Amino acid sequence: MDYSEIFENIRRKKSYLCVGLDSEIEKIPASLLKEKDPVFQFNKRIIDATQKYAIAYKPNVAFYECYGSKGWTTLERTVEYLKENHPDIFVIADAKRGDIGNTSKMYAKAFLENMPFDAITVAPYMGEDSVTPFLSYNDKWVVLLALTSNKGADDFQYHDEDGIRLFERVLTVSQKWGTTNNMMYVVGATRAEMLKDIRRLIPDHFLLVPGVGAQGGSLEEVSKYGMNGKCGLLVNSSRGIIFADDSVKFDMVAGEKAHEIQLEMEKYLSEKNLI
Amino acid sequence: MDYSEIFENIRRKKSYLCVGLDSEIEKIPASLLKEKDPVFQFNKRIIDATQKYAIAYKPNVAFYECYGSKGWTTLERTVEYLKENHPDIFVIADAKRGDIGNTSKMYAKAFLENMPFDAITVAPYMGEDSVTPFLSYNDKWVVLLALTSNKGADDFQYHDEDGIRLFERVLTVSQKWGTTNNMMYVVGATRAEMLKDIRRLIPDHFLLVPGVGAQGGSLEEVSKYGMNGKCGLLVNSSRGIIFADDSVKFDMVAGEKAHEIQLEMEKYLSEKNLI
Repeated sequence: MDYSEIFENIRRKKSYLCVGLDSEIEKIPASLLKEKDPVFQFNKRIIDATQKYAIAYKPNVAFYECYGSKGWTTLERTVEYLKENHPDIFVIADAKRGDIGNTSKMYAKAFLENMPFDAITVAPYMGEDSVTPFLSYNDKWVVLLALTSNKGADDFQYHDEDGIRLFERVLTVSQKWGTTNNMMYVVGATRAEMLKDIRRLIPDHFLLVPGVGAQGGSLEEVSKYGMNGKCGLLVNSSRGIIFADDSVKFDMVAGEKAHEIQLEMEKYLSEKNLI
Repeated sequence: MDYSEIFENIRRKKSYLCVGLDSEIEKIPASLLKEKDPVFQFNKRIIDATQKYAIAYKPNVAFYECYGSKGWTTLERTVEYLKENHPDIFVIADAKRGDIGNTSKMYAKAFLENMPFDAITVAPYMGEDSVTPFLSYNDKWVVLLALTSNKGADDFQYHDEDGIRLFERVLTVSQKWGTTNNMMYVVGATRAEMLKDIRRLIPDHFLLVPGVGAQGGSLEEVSKYGMNGKCGLLVNSSRGIIFADDSVKFDMVAGEKAHEIQLEMEKYLSEKNLI
């Protein structure tokens, strides 16, 4: 999926919502536990109930990996279900991978070739040759960590050389590795005020913004500081949507939560004359 | 396994060799391809042939993950085989994970709880709360990326604030998160001369040193600059051992290669009066 297709989907659905599938088995409704693959059944019902309001989904790979090969099968089924039933949905593997070239190539194969993900989150610490293997697929994307939403972001990401902070250096240096059509950046919503600085460095790139909802970020601020002329935002909410309710009607409630967010997004898109 | 047990194993085997199990199916001997799980059979024979000369093994998770749930099963079988048959072997998941706290907790569960790995490699970019969940297990280790062996290490790891380079900051800041008994650091052998500076900052920690062999690092230099009074080194070789031969005698040749390295290590340990 390319930049203009993503923007078209945003305009059509009046939404830049990404639903995070952090589907912890301990938190899914008890009624599903009798199913053969409870997490997949949970994901399927969450997807069906929310897909009208979302343009992207982001399975958090850790939550599948922690169940070993069985969890990996659930991940495979989830991404296949998404791409088969909703081919217009942009699907991101939130995997935070990155290693020396020959190893990153294998991670890229895992997520972008053997599974039909559109994108994968990648950690920048090991530099160019750890990232470029993920950029060798047509219409697939790297979502590179720049400024994350957690407290630990303060430990290294603000580390400053000649007035240039590490996350800014990541943004500047990595721009040469790809294009606005195959690279996005992770910028945490809990750092919304930083989006102004970030937009000066990368006015056009899409940003994947986690941290709205359970982590305390504000959708209004993120949209105010981060939105560009092609929207340029995918704002993720995970727990606030998928675990909003644990009764048998969990999917309906998740759909309502996603709809609420979509309506707020519609307002910001409209204010910016993008729809 | 704790610090002193690792040192005892080093003294007993006169070796600080870690064998990297980057077991790519395209590179394993054709004679194994008729087996039900060729990569596991390959690993098993490599382990049996080299375990006399090695104190640690390091499956590179990407090379399993790229075969999906099937590959994950091979990884599970490999680490179980190692721990059941050679409980004195230190087994490292080379996974380069790291994410916000609740997600790192799931990665820790995957590798340190559901699989019997002794250690996992972790990326530092997201800071303290992305690393500490891995440190909450008794006798398990984090191996944190500090200075990596690849070209891309130049992009960010040498980034300097007030004379302190990013990799030095990682070493200094992260020391407060754990102890010499649950944290090691990755320092690439291709940067052996940097080991002098690094040993000033962390004289006691174990270092996991990749990059000897196929990547061009020198065991002699690594040992000269990196060895401390408890050895303090685990030096990894992957392709140089496991793919030294692709005939039916591949395991015998791998054993010979491991033995050669062990003999060189014995020399350095002896020169330092550690054995």
